[in-house]
Amino acid sequence: MKNKACIVTVGNEILKGKTVNTNASHIGRVLSFLGYEVVRGIVVPDNEEDIIWAFRNAMFVSDLVVSSGGLGPTFDDMTLNGLAKALEVELEVNEEALGMIKKKYDSMGVELTEERIKMAKLPEKSKALKNPVGTAPGVYLERGDKKVLVLPGVPAEMKAILEEMSENLRFNGRSYYEESVDIKGIMESAMAPVIDKIMKKHSGEVYIKSHPKHSENRNPELEIEVSASAETKEEATKRVKATLEEIVLEAEKMRG
Amino acid sequence: MKNKACIVTVGNEILKGKTVNTNASHIGRVLSFLGYEVVRGIVVPDNEEDIIWAFRNAMFVSDLVVSSGGLGPTFDDMTLNGLAKALEVELEVNEEALGMIKKKYDSMGVELTEERIKMAKLPEKSKALKNPVGTAPGVYLERGDKKVLVLPGVPAEMKAILEEMSENLRFNGRSYYEESVDIKGIMESAMAPVIDKIMKKHSGEVYIKSHPKHSENRNPELEIEVSASAETKEEATKRVKATLEEIVLEAEKMRG
Repeated sequence: MKNKACIVTVGNEILKGKTVNTNASHIGRVLSFLGYEVVRGIVVPDNEEDIIWAFRNAMFVSDLVVSSGGLGPTFDDMTLNGLAKALEVELEVNEEALGMIKKKYDSMGVELTEERIKMAKLPEKSKALKNPVGTAPGVYLERGDKKVLVLPGVPAEMKAILEEMSENLRFNGRSYYEESVDIKGIMESAMAPVIDKIMKKHSGEVYIKSHPKHSENRNPELEIEVSASAETKEEATKRVKATLEEIVLEAEKMRG
Repeated sequence: MKNKACIVTVGNEILKGKTVNTNASHIGRVLSFLGYEVVRGIVVPDNEEDIIWAFRNAMFVSDLVVSSGGLGPTFDDMTLNGLAKALEVELEVNEEALGMIKKKYDSMGVELTEERIKMAKLPEKSKALKNPVGTAPGVYLERGDKKVLVLPGVPAEMKAILEEMSENLRFNGRSYYEESVDIKGIMESAMAPVIDKIMKKHSGEVYIKSHPKHSENRNPELEIEVSASAETKEEATKRVKATLEEIVLEAEKMRG
């Protein structure tokens, strides 16, 4: 098992820009700090064919796939159909999931309908994950050395289930640390060769990225972010802090 | 030329969730109202190989690709390298782009360096697009019946260049309209069969999507969004408004 992850988001509303994809950024944040390198993000419409493609592509390039969206009761919630087809397995009523859903609707005093039972139809050999906030359970499954976590699209539900699962997903042996420094009065294009030089010196041990706070002009401001993945949190932190110091020193030299 | 579009975002900071992908939602919004159907979103790291894959995949499934990110002066701004390789053409100094960049830096009283000239190296047969806010020009090119628009990652720069280009990109003969209604007191799972019935009745003429405002409980609230693409704005609007009326009527019947 390696530590590459891919984030899949299902929903027309994201593609149309009606909803900003804060789910993907939350998941990306959590996975980074769990030791994963997020290597790809994919957004697809509520369309079975596209969902099949998304899961196949994501499982091809990564070890852990986390999706959100498309788990609800409506006709266009078809993430699990797509995932089952991507894996070439059938959907089946998962007794654990059905129990969770029944309990929720019982407590509201309403009956199970076809649309509600739909949320309990999971790909074979899935684990249903309790949704403490809403009704549709999350889904976790493993195929070979690949892991897939399927989360609902409602942010509070997505966050709650991911939080519950995160210790099980932690990638041991890889810790991530990042820290940023703001550099004023130096243009990104002037800082570029300095960053390049420092990056080369540390050859792969740290990653440096400059984010211009606004466009280049006479009063530029740069956020320079340094991050590292290492075997321990201490080692990652040490590398990042040492590199930040070098950057600050170089910037001071440049300003004279 | 058809009207499928794909949005590519380049940047580790998006994958790690350090930055929320508001560029993609802004672009998705603009393209929808220009008559496009956004069929896929792809986020890739600052890595040439992934960028090549992203452009190839996007050009394969759509007619218009709009990217943002990776146009700046630093070593890891490599969107244009990746695009050139995806198209199997060379990068060359674009005289128009170089003129724009030179003018900017001249006005700040600084010299052109290798890092600054880099921003003028575009794939062969590209058009440089003036960046009214920052320094890196946007890039537009056509290959066969495919169009590619490459925008900077700084939101203000991305928006300004997209705005300038939008009338040239408008997809004639397709107008988009959407409107939402809030339905209180009915659960999404109860509303699902009703929406399904109305969608089937209009077979493909409108698209209905329900967004639960929070999780299902005794006081649910649903945003139901109806959208349509039609030959004229009037026709799209008419279909959406008629469908919204049906939904509201059905909801009233359900509440008794």
